[in-house]
Amino acid sequence: MYRPPVDEMAHTLKKIAGLEDAIAQGRFGDLSDDLIDAILEEAGKFASTRVAPLLQVGDRHGTPLKDAEVTMPPGWKDVYRDWIAGGWNGLTGEEEYGGQGLPMMLAIATFEMWNSGSMAFGIGPTLTLGAIEALEAHATHELKQIYLPKLISGEWMGTMNLTEPQAGSDVGALRTRAERSDDGTYRIFGTKIFITYGEHDLTENIIHMVLARLPDAPAGTKGISLFLVPKFLVNEDGTLGARNDVFCGGIEHKMGIHGSPTCTMIYGDGFANDREAGAVGWLIGEENRGLACMFTMMNNARLAVGIQGVAVAEAAYQKSLAYAQERRQMRAPGWVGEGMSPIIEHQDVQRDLLTMKGLTGAARSIAYACAHALDMAKTGTGDDARWWADRANLLTPVAKAFCTDVGVDVASIGIQIHGGMGYIEETGAAQFLRDARIAPIYEGTNGIQAIDLVQRKLQLGGGEHVKDYIAELRNVADAVGALNTTDLRQTATRLQTGLNDLEQASLWLQRAITAGQIREAYAGATPYLRLFGLAAGATYLAKGALAGQNPGRTALARFFAENLLSETSTLKDRIIHGAPSLLDARMALGS
Amino acid sequence: MYRPPVDEMAHTLKKIAGLEDAIAQGRFGDLSDDLIDAILEEAGKFASTRVAPLLQVGDRHGTPLKDAEVTMPPGWKDVYRDWIAGGWNGLTGEEEYGGQGLPMMLAIATFEMWNSGSMAFGIGPTLTLGAIEALEAHATHELKQIYLPKLISGEWMGTMNLTEPQAGSDVGALRTRAERSDDGTYRIFGTKIFITYGEHDLTENIIHMVLARLPDAPAGTKGISLFLVPKFLVNEDGTLGARNDVFCGGIEHKMGIHGSPTCTMIYGDGFANDREAGAVGWLIGEENRGLACMFTMMNNARLAVGIQGVAVAEAAYQKSLAYAQERRQMRAPGWVGEGMSPIIEHQDVQRDLLTMKGLTGAARSIAYACAHALDMAKTGTGDDARWWADRANLLTPVAKAFCTDVGVDVASIGIQIHGGMGYIEETGAAQFLRDARIAPIYEGTNGIQAIDLVQRKLQLGGGEHVKDYIAELRNVADAVGALNTTDLRQTATRLQTGLNDLEQASLWLQRAITAGQIREAYAGATPYLRLFGLAAGATYLAKGALAGQNPGRTALARFFAENLLSETSTLKDRIIHGAPSLLDARMALGS
Repeated sequence: MYRPPVDEMAHTLKKIAGLEDAIAQGRFGDLSDDLIDAILEEAGKFASTRVAPLLQVGDRHGTPLKDAEVTMPPGWKDVYRDWIAGGWNGLTGEEEYGGQGLPMMLAIATFEMWNSGSMAFGIGPTLTLGAIEALEAHATHELKQIYLPKLISGEWMGTMNLTEPQAGSDVGALRTRAERSDDGTYRIFGTKIFITYGEHDLTENIIHMVLARLPDAPAGTKGISLFLVPKFLVNEDGTLGARNDVFCGGIEHKMGIHGSPTCTMIYGDGFANDREAGAVGWLIGEENRGLACMFTMMNNARLAVGIQGVAVAEAAYQKSLAYAQERRQMRAPGWVGEGMSPIIEHQDVQRDLLTMKGLTGAARSIAYACAHALDMAKTGTGDDARWWADRANLLTPVAKAFCTDVGVDVASIGIQIHGGMGYIEETGAAQFLRDARIAPIYEGTNGIQAIDLVQRKLQLGGGEHVKDYIAELRNVADAVGALNTTDLRQTATRLQTGLNDLEQASLWLQRAITAGQIREAYAGATPYLRLFGLAAGATYLAKGALAGQNPGRTALARFFAENLLSETSTLKDRIIHGAPSLLDARMALGS
Repeated sequence: MYRPPVDEMAHTLKKIAGLEDAIAQGRFGDLSDDLIDAILEEAGKFASTRVAPLLQVGDRHGTPLKDAEVTMPPGWKDVYRDWIAGGWNGLTGEEEYGGQGLPMMLAIATFEMWNSGSMAFGIGPTLTLGAIEALEAHATHELKQIYLPKLISGEWMGTMNLTEPQAGSDVGALRTRAERSDDGTYRIFGTKIFITYGEHDLTENIIHMVLARLPDAPAGTKGISLFLVPKFLVNEDGTLGARNDVFCGGIEHKMGIHGSPTCTMIYGDGFANDREAGAVGWLIGEENRGLACMFTMMNNARLAVGIQGVAVAEAAYQKSLAYAQERRQMRAPGWVGEGMSPIIEHQDVQRDLLTMKGLTGAARSIAYACAHALDMAKTGTGDDARWWADRANLLTPVAKAFCTDVGVDVASIGIQIHGGMGYIEETGAAQFLRDARIAPIYEGTNGIQAIDLVQRKLQLGGGEHVKDYIAELRNVADAVGALNTTDLRQTATRLQTGLNDLEQASLWLQRAITAGQIREAYAGATPYLRLFGLAAGATYLAKGALAGQNPGRTALARFFAENLLSETSTLKDRIIHGAPSLLDARMALGS
């Protein structure tokens, strides 16, 4: 059973990702160390005692659809009710609308816990948060008054409706239609697919954020607008009114996260009122400016999906560690105990467990550092705010893609540690891989993240921002070197090497983009994102080791630097020297 | 739908893995090029038109158990009947017992096709082959007369019963009991788990090969014996007699290969005859020498499982390639066509597809080369036979572990290429990963393979055998260099670097083992096996490119050398420099 690593999370928040510094700067008002610890402790209790028991029941029961209504798995509604009663949905919401105005860093740490308990449970509130942020940033005061309090409390949940069959990564290709109505609202017609929590019985109302195209809109991404489409219209007194013409037309049969309903949503086909009058929607932001609103929703959702990777990795690691401590097979070299040794004593299993723990810790650090940048941007002004927004923008694709790849890799190693038992569904190790496998895909595939990093994020601040970031990481490596301890001497050298690789690859890609060698740059995008994640993650682990006398943390940082980090040399080579043979090999794939 | 890559398979057999040379040496009698092509062509037809349609029905239907009887999925029995009628089960069987005496190389190529069609279907005959080989090598003439013709024809299937709850990787810990009976037979009592095809309705009889321990047996692996235990006893006239006291007590609910029944088998609990008289068994080989018999079964089974990795990788690659050619999203850099480009035009997707294809081809080469060594050992005598047996022993753990890791990795990339559709079960991409995920576990986990490679196989021929192998690979690299073409100049250099890495790592591990630094050597076992696979696979692909004017093959060999092979430097570093930080980090995992 999942045990929230509260100490490790608090350490990562405070000593690695910048929470202590932010507090010292007065960024978070009177938020105290004690309050942070108390919040993490309470969230941990809820995640382990209430959310985690939903994991397998969600997997087995799924979310059956009948007559356009979805029934959530047994027990889920009760847990969700108590979860919102605990105020967990509103941590970061604006205080004006009932939120607690706490830092995103804290919210992300709690998200990790919900998702370690059950990724299928955790993804629901992630979508609600996206809707909240879109409304906070772009909605009229009137719409905010009506919807934000209920969304922030969690009494209603939100969704993001982007994808259509022909428009996945390419949202500009969407065809859902929006028509202006005389009363200032809009009528929406069309079909959206892969809509997470599009329909369910956890809440009385569901607030859909829908991308659609006006009749006179320009083609492509410059012609999409964002609309709020509630499942039930809301009366002036706040009670629920008529059923809106948006219905769930189907549920996907997925590899994992069976407890999360993935819906086909049909807008305006007359199911509600026997005439095709359209689903009633309200414009969010300006007409044809929906892309900006979408990115408001998606950016934080990308970080939240990244944390899902960390969360599943943590849960898979814990299960594997417990199994490796119990399961006995053979006598490991060096084992002096009676009979067969626990398999954790086998060096090969140690490598697996340390790789799992190291990657998980590195990914957590990156995700929390990204949340920190969001908080700094939000609490700053002017240049300071813009600089931190750049930092968040730089780290978001890394947090999304590196962390979700780690989730898949760590879950797969976890199956391996369990041997034959890992392949049996009742064990639970396989579910982690099945659940984790969606995270590199949704909210923008990891390939898209890598291209975003190379094409846009490396150019932030005229190309200087990433250099500043690498310089910051170098300061950590220098501090490790200055310690000059036997334990970490190699680590310091290896961090410098890894950061050299990151710097050289960054410069090469910046130059390629500037020179218009886009194909060459994109060919190296995925290796670059991983290089970035490994170098940053190794440095963060070392930073954490610097912060205190914890032999376990020091040993893990060292293992990462001396065993995992050297992959950067391979990755750098692929980026700088790999493109010609890749581009020339197009023919090997046929026409 | 799966299309057998017959040309590529024939090319790999003949030009890379050594089939042409073996034929030239007269090793395979009058086996002709034409016959080989005809066999591959026919097998391909059966695999694609009959086996492949079983894939999804097996996954959905599973193998329900009722009253100790297992029902196979709809259609499976018909396909199996026609498959054995085609003679496919007996390709390598001894001609004396109705087999065709063909090379293992051909059998392995056909195994690839059955498993590309459906891994759950393909694994059944793999177990039968293990039983056949154990009987051929160790059984009395009388037992051979009774059982081999039916097993070779496939009229009966065979199983391997090794695992017990406390005895997985450590077969020496098994407790199943065998008692001597006055009539020269034995009575077996105990429970085996994870028995593939332990019970089913494809054949009238099932021949279980069971490891058990005699009452006076020494502890550990020196006290296990192998027994033949038929589901139905066989009358003197060859007809089926009494039901033996071996029954299926349960079926596992697995992540994948749902069409393959994984059974708990209960021996001698009196279910058949209301008294605990034991299941009737016949000794194979000598008492307490069951381990040697087991390795006869397992070694070829390990290669056959390795080919499952290749098979699923091939099927996943084909599906992904087809999807990438059809699915259109955005405009790739360099795309000059109308509208959105097929996603295959995106460089990041090309990297994925080339990685899939390169790894699949490399893995296939290694598996076929291993089969070649088995054939050479079988057709040779004296030192020649022993030398080739060493070669087969060296390559077996690599073929098993590298190829099955490739199967998982390639299947996972395949999901990614499909985007959201990849996560929907109906698409079929997810099933490849769910199916493939067992192969690194069964027939000896990949960690065990890596330790076997380092501990035993590197010492073959007094440590010289692996050096000879690397020297052979170097000859290929030299030949590539001697070509001195623009295309492959880099490839030659990179092959030399990769082979240097392999040699240095091999020497380091040999010295560590000799010096008694077993923990240090085992710490590097898994990275070493992968290094071995990458270096050998890259060299084989280049060898294939040398063989003919095929621009696609040359481009793929080059892509592998310039993009994938450089991982060897990271792996060598982990092996030679990674152990201290790994061993010291045991504390980071807790007690």
